[in-house]
Amino acid sequence: MLIVQKFGGTSVGDLERIQNVANRVSATKKAGNDVVVVVSAMSGETNKLVAYAEHFSQNPSRPEMDMLLSSGERVTAALLAIALKEMGHDSVAMSGRKAGIVTDSHHTKARIEEIDPTAMNEAIKEGKIIVVAGFQGVNENGDVTTLGRGGSDLSAVAVAGAINADLCEIYTDVTGIFTTDPRIESKAKKIDKISYEEMLEMASLGAKVLQNRSVEMAKKLNVNLVTRSSFCDEEGTLITKEENIMEKPLVSGIALDKNQARISLIGVSDRPGIASEIFNKLAKAEVNVDMIVQNRGHGGTTNIDFTVAKGDLNDAKDVVKEFIKEGDLQDDVYNEKICKVSVVGVGMKSHAGVAAKAFSTMAENNININMISTSEIKVSMVIEEKYAELAVRSLHDAYELDK
Amino acid sequence: MLIVQKFGGTSVGDLERIQNVANRVSATKKAGNDVVVVVSAMSGETNKLVAYAEHFSQNPSRPEMDMLLSSGERVTAALLAIALKEMGHDSVAMSGRKAGIVTDSHHTKARIEEIDPTAMNEAIKEGKIIVVAGFQGVNENGDVTTLGRGGSDLSAVAVAGAINADLCEIYTDVTGIFTTDPRIESKAKKIDKISYEEMLEMASLGAKVLQNRSVEMAKKLNVNLVTRSSFCDEEGTLITKEENIMEKPLVSGIALDKNQARISLIGVSDRPGIASEIFNKLAKAEVNVDMIVQNRGHGGTTNIDFTVAKGDLNDAKDVVKEFIKEGDLQDDVYNEKICKVSVVGVGMKSHAGVAAKAFSTMAENNININMISTSEIKVSMVIEEKYAELAVRSLHDAYELDK
Repeated sequence: MLIVQKFGGTSVGDLERIQNVANRVSATKKAGNDVVVVVSAMSGETNKLVAYAEHFSQNPSRPEMDMLLSSGERVTAALLAIALKEMGHDSVAMSGRKAGIVTDSHHTKARIEEIDPTAMNEAIKEGKIIVVAGFQGVNENGDVTTLGRGGSDLSAVAVAGAINADLCEIYTDVTGIFTTDPRIESKAKKIDKISYEEMLEMASLGAKVLQNRSVEMAKKLNVNLVTRSSFCDEEGTLITKEENIMEKPLVSGIALDKNQARISLIGVSDRPGIASEIFNKLAKAEVNVDMIVQNRGHGGTTNIDFTVAKGDLNDAKDVVKEFIKEGDLQDDVYNEKICKVSVVGVGMKSHAGVAAKAFSTMAENNININMISTSEIKVSMVIEEKYAELAVRSLHDAYELDK
Repeated sequence: MLIVQKFGGTSVGDLERIQNVANRVSATKKAGNDVVVVVSAMSGETNKLVAYAEHFSQNPSRPEMDMLLSSGERVTAALLAIALKEMGHDSVAMSGRKAGIVTDSHHTKARIEEIDPTAMNEAIKEGKIIVVAGFQGVNENGDVTTLGRGGSDLSAVAVAGAINADLCEIYTDVTGIFTTDPRIESKAKKIDKISYEEMLEMASLGAKVLQNRSVEMAKKLNVNLVTRSSFCDEEGTLITKEENIMEKPLVSGIALDKNQARISLIGVSDRPGIASEIFNKLAKAEVNVDMIVQNRGHGGTTNIDFTVAKGDLNDAKDVVKEFIKEGDLQDDVYNEKICKVSVVGVGMKSHAGVAAKAFSTMAENNININMISTSEIKVSMVIEEKYAELAVRSLHDAYELDK
């Protein structure tokens, strides 16, 4: 097999851990596979460099930040290649440039535009273990760019796609994706296989393991993604096409998002297009609106409730104030003490009753549902924050996810 | 003026010092000059990275070492450009690649082959302060290379040559080149101007300030080199063409080299070509022979004395042993307790009596001269090591270098 293995900052956090990574890569190679490794900076390095830059400027220029930050991954890549050579493997370290990773010019948050796999394919053909510095590429002018948070995962997925790897393994400090957060429900189980779509819906659950950008790219490039631990040999979770999952569970997991705030617009005037105006203004202010519920209010007006990420609340308030000033709505009410609990599973598509069971589980526990939103593969409910853990545990139980 | 300023590791050793460098560069720019800065890695960084690599391998692969080590200069260059921008200057950080520095492929000790100054000239025209990561370039395959010890000085001189800079200032922790080592002779004075040739001869005196490779390149590219301190405003020493020095001193300085060992070959057989054979074998063993004296021995044989750097002594011994085994010479004697004292000055060319004064000064102090070697601009004498300081002070006095 041709396998891409990506090791994050904690996995290469010190010299001993880099040696452990070398041992793991070596074992994979010796088992008869071709291996391309993608590495992050040693944990702490990137933060140290950011602090250095902020010593000089609160708003350091982005091309220079990219030159600065890209150095961390180069160090790890060089060290790992040196370790692998010492173990008798033919190995070569490659910067993002050498690996052919071309991005747009949005310094510090560039997007990968294409990968020229020529150099990598040649090295693979020569039997070399390639170690690619993650998180970085070059723009069309040849200037170094970086991909922003989670960028090394993106590098790995894009590389896997470009060289048609059979597998892209993302190594972190957790063993995989769980049916729910094990800190909330100790009976949570590791999921063996999950579809891209489910993984995307469970973003809030898996946010610390995999970012949506990486899962989306894996889906687009049809890359079989595995997330597993670099600290043990336990098999991880395979994220793949729905067709590749034979036994589709009704429900795959319960996701919890506490980073939500609700905005209630009261007495919105009933003229046509007003809702569209409000949400367009919010979009312009880069406020990401999640759930929306509209219902009839008093005297020919309507009420609109919607949720946003807590960090966007102030920007949303500013937009809403304008509409109050214009007389387009009477009042607004905010609630930050809410959370969103979601039931996710591809099996829902073909089975009725999944949503009903979620609602009745809430009712049995006297948890009031404020808002509901559904898609083909999920049911999300906004409830009071204090019921978050109870709701997760009850749903986990109701769908027998510990079985 | 167009000025290249190079700051070494101690000058950019921490964030505060990088800010000091930014202040100095800013002042130079504000005085109406165009400035290109060349920086080393923060002191300690390169050694740290070397230690990291040696954790994995006693003989780490050189292309990977170059990828590893070149990161240090990139960090400093990015930080300094960020600091300069914060001070209101338009500034841009450039890697060796971006600055157009092309080298051969001798990884970890590459030689600069050419510099394409297009990007630098463009940035200068736009009024930008360029900050170049020193010590690095790329080979014709586009792989990163490093220039070995003192490499950032070489980068600076080569850049100055490529962009036709009026001046190339090398900032270190000393204020310039002195008539002799001030730790030996407290009356030693800083030299205002010195020719390339004198500087090269005074290598052992100035070794810690400037490496011969840099001076040779400055000479070749006709770059006016200034060495000065980054910790004070005192003017430094200008190293330039002899023609640019109006008032040529008879003697510019007294150099002392304690890193010498003498090898005496006794009873060398008198067949033709034997001396040439011995020195060819030494050259093959990469032993650098400095001074050579030959004189008649007993019974048709000759004696040959020569000096080598102490570090090369063991290699030299191995070569000599072979010749003894072959019967080509009778015996060898080694002496590590010697030193070389040199009187250097372009004025010697046109003035007789300089050498005579050196010899009589030694005689006055009862210092026996073992070996003598002269060139157009220097007189070197090998003496017992214990007289080193006395010899330097007496000569400094005799030529009135404190005046």
